[in-house]
Amino acid sequence: GAAPAAGHGGGWTLSVILCVNILILGAALISCSAVNGAAVTPVHRQIFLIVLLSLTILWMLFYTIFTRRAVSSKDSHAGPLWLRVGLVLFGLLSLIMDMFMIANYSGRLHCDSPVKVAFPCIQAVFIFFQTYFLWIHAKDCVQLHKDLTRCGLTVTLSCNLVLWMSAVVEEYNHHTDAPENLTVRSIQRASFGDHKCKCSFTSCGVFKEAYYYLYPFNIEYSLFASAMAYVMWKNVGRLAEEHAHQRPKFRVKDVSVGPVAGILLVLTGLATFIVYEMQVVEEEQKNTALLIHFITNIVIVSLMSVCTAAGCLLFCLDQRPHVREDNPTRGLDVGLLVGASMGQLVISYFSVVALAAEGAEGHVNSLNLAWAVLTVVQLGMQNLFVIAGLHREPYQESRAPGTGANGTALSPVRKRRKRSFSLAACRHGINWKRRLLKEICVFVLLANIILWIMPAFGARPQFDQTVEIHFYGFTMWAAIVNIGLPFGIFYRMHSVASLFEVYLIV
Amino acid sequence: GAAPAAGHGGGWTLSVILCVNILILGAALISCSAVNGAAVTPVHRQIFLIVLLSLTILWMLFYTIFTRRAVSSKDSHAGPLWLRVGLVLFGLLSLIMDMFMIANYSGRLHCDSPVKVAFPCIQAVFIFFQTYFLWIHAKDCVQLHKDLTRCGLTVTLSCNLVLWMSAVVEEYNHHTDAPENLTVRSIQRASFGDHKCKCSFTSCGVFKEAYYYLYPFNIEYSLFASAMAYVMWKNVGRLAEEHAHQRPKFRVKDVSVGPVAGILLVLTGLATFIVYEMQVVEEEQKNTALLIHFITNIVIVSLMSVCTAAGCLLFCLDQRPHVREDNPTRGLDVGLLVGASMGQLVISYFSVVALAAEGAEGHVNSLNLAWAVLTVVQLGMQNLFVIAGLHREPYQESRAPGTGANGTALSPVRKRRKRSFSLAACRHGINWKRRLLKEICVFVLLANIILWIMPAFGARPQFDQTVEIHFYGFTMWAAIVNIGLPFGIFYRMHSVASLFEVYLIV
Repeated sequence: GAAPAAGHGGGWTLSVILCVNILILGAALISCSAVNGAAVTPVHRQIFLIVLLSLTILWMLFYTIFTRRAVSSKDSHAGPLWLRVGLVLFGLLSLIMDMFMIANYSGRLHCDSPVKVAFPCIQAVFIFFQTYFLWIHAKDCVQLHKDLTRCGLTVTLSCNLVLWMSAVVEEYNHHTDAPENLTVRSIQRASFGDHKCKCSFTSCGVFKEAYYYLYPFNIEYSLFASAMAYVMWKNVGRLAEEHAHQRPKFRVKDVSVGPVAGILLVLTGLATFIVYEMQVVEEEQKNTALLIHFITNIVIVSLMSVCTAAGCLLFCLDQRPHVREDNPTRGLDVGLLVGASMGQLVISYFSVVALAAEGAEGHVNSLNLAWAVLTVVQLGMQNLFVIAGLHREPYQESRAPGTGANGTALSPVRKRRKRSFSLAACRHGINWKRRLLKEICVFVLLANIILWIMPAFGARPQFDQTVEIHFYGFTMWAAIVNIGLPFGIFYRMHSVASLFEVYLIV
Repeated sequence: GAAPAAGHGGGWTLSVILCVNILILGAALISCSAVNGAAVTPVHRQIFLIVLLSLTILWMLFYTIFTRRAVSSKDSHAGPLWLRVGLVLFGLLSLIMDMFMIANYSGRLHCDSPVKVAFPCIQAVFIFFQTYFLWIHAKDCVQLHKDLTRCGLTVTLSCNLVLWMSAVVEEYNHHTDAPENLTVRSIQRASFGDHKCKCSFTSCGVFKEAYYYLYPFNIEYSLFASAMAYVMWKNVGRLAEEHAHQRPKFRVKDVSVGPVAGILLVLTGLATFIVYEMQVVEEEQKNTALLIHFITNIVIVSLMSVCTAAGCLLFCLDQRPHVREDNPTRGLDVGLLVGASMGQLVISYFSVVALAAEGAEGHVNSLNLAWAVLTVVQLGMQNLFVIAGLHREPYQESRAPGTGANGTALSPVRKRRKRSFSLAACRHGINWKRRLLKEICVFVLLANIILWIMPAFGARPQFDQTVEIHFYGFTMWAAIVNIGLPFGIFYRMHSVASLFEVYLIV
């Protein structure tokens, strides 16, 4: 693998092949241990993961010591703050999860494999290192050891994706443990060791409960790290031109209706969410809780759809020039946004088909159907709105034809003067379109926050009513939801960040 | 959808959103009818497909009448001949399949839904139109009605992918009908209508057998059409610079050992393939047939691995300049190659894990394991070799540093003179490296042909031995093979074309 590479040379190919191979081998191992737990035990899977994690840690050490000195160029768009802060947050929660796992399995060392203690230890080291590594180096455009760096980054990427798959399967096993009448043969086999081997501490059960509760955050961590490693991989060898990338300052003064309405929406959403979480555990109040939850969601999603549709229309009316230059990081960003929205789309469409086929009888089912349909509409409109917004040039007053072309040639000082002039113009109420767009941005941003909070903190209406579970069988429905929902959560966070950027651009 | 678009504007976003939505809705409908055949019958699925097919046909008509006049620029790399010929070939076989389907279901009109006759009729019209459309327009870089064309192309793309999914499920249903002791509950439900309703002709059974035999070709057709629609979609709005793209002529004189060895390999492969096909149907000779098949494949794959490894080494030694310019069509081509290789990789890795976990006892199993491992190695090496080869500048004699940079500035005449000079030099045996690379190309190309023939004409060793079936369960293993194998077949054809190109470049 010492091919001298330029552009898409030998190192690029090798890194892609490496990534594909690790991913497929990981998928094969993990689905084996899910389907046939007797032949491929979790211990086998964890040994594979330990090897992978150690390799990645070694490469990150190598990078930190040897390669990073040669990094001259940085991509200012890559690794935005929200992504890095999210990574650290989820990383911390994952570390806590690993502590609980270590505590739980070290109480079973006398009768269970030591690998089950070793794995969370290595994982904790890995998460600590990787979070540090990505925080510092997410913006790097590597110019030295390009082949090795490409391979290292794809190993990191595939390592995170394999960890993600593994966590999804674990989460799924936990889900299938809970409903008594729906246990699956293979699951019992998979967690066979757990049931026979008694823990020597008394507080083991608590640890176990706790770390299962933290799994979703670990899943999010893997997705965040994968996204950042992918962007770094794309940036290897790229010479990022140093834009005097001067962001327009964030000003709340320009808007009033949007934030107020948005905050009201968030508070209402929070209140109904708490009511839902308290009522849904009691069998006789379950239906009421679901009704409340669905109605709230339908209201939120409808308002968002209307607002983003109005926003798209405004963008159409607006004759501002589009961004002409081809920005690879922006392209990646848009790709991640659309890709992540597919998680929620899959859940919604599968709901729609199941509910439509069963006839959607009763209030709960018809509301669920309406929610699913409206979610699809909302996701489409929001993607259109965000992408249209991101591809505009930042606002400039003079609209004579040709401004777009010379726009980049203006000196920063002149640019700033122009912008402050345009802001002044706006404050005097000249441009109602811009103001309306800003209001819409803030409102939709806040609505996305509440739509993020609900699933992130444990709302699972998908499992609280039975139509889909009976229609697809528990196995398939749980797989769909457990794979789709983390992407949905990632999508909401990504949307918040993108809408903030659109707000600044408009 | 009237957003004025430039670059990645509104039309682009809309087309992606459209594609994602159709795909996910199609996937939901199709998996419903596979999992829960009582609620979503094949008739529902076919109505959805009829709507989709009609939309696509309408758009293609619109394009042929209004848009194509405005096409000025053509991408010479897009829609290569092998892809178009393959499309026509598989299109013809799919048309025959549709005829058989119409004949079969028109004999059941008295007791079955008329949709089952309407669907193959519409599909036949669609295949006819689309094959014509793609044959003529595959190279177009559309400049007019860009938004509409983008949306039309993604509808075409998703339509083909939904047809592919549908065909895979049908094929799977047919497979699960065959083994008596492995029938699955849901499958019986899905084909419920067929068993009750008797055909009014006597030759119905023959028609049914015949069209099930033609399904794999229909699957290939969908994959080919998807690949071409995707490339067209990527080319919308692109201004392809008119290279005086002058291909070096194909000359067989330069090589001797490669073709002879390759043809010997093909003949041996064909002979053992015929023996395998004849013996595998008889229970007592099955093991011998499998042994012969596995040994042949292992020999072929090992020879290919060694050759491509040598080829990669030669490319490393060779100091010829790499292609500097960023060619989007070439990037797509490489992406399709690596993507298609994942089909075979998935099958091989799942085999490896199952066989390794079960211990691989007996000759057949250990040979199967060896075959799977060697296939993974071969695929990796071949991808490296092909991609390295495609990224070289066509051979030029003068190797002084800097030639790569001015290479494009040379006039075609001078270039041709140079090339003929270099060919003359080669004929005199000066450059053993180039000659060896050419020999390797031809040999590996022929080996890919025999590896294409075997699965394309019905070799299914994956279902002839039981380890994987028992390990994963028939459902999962059939899904893996039925999804992976068509991509594997596509990969072999694609490799043949790419290796031919590498042969010309070297």
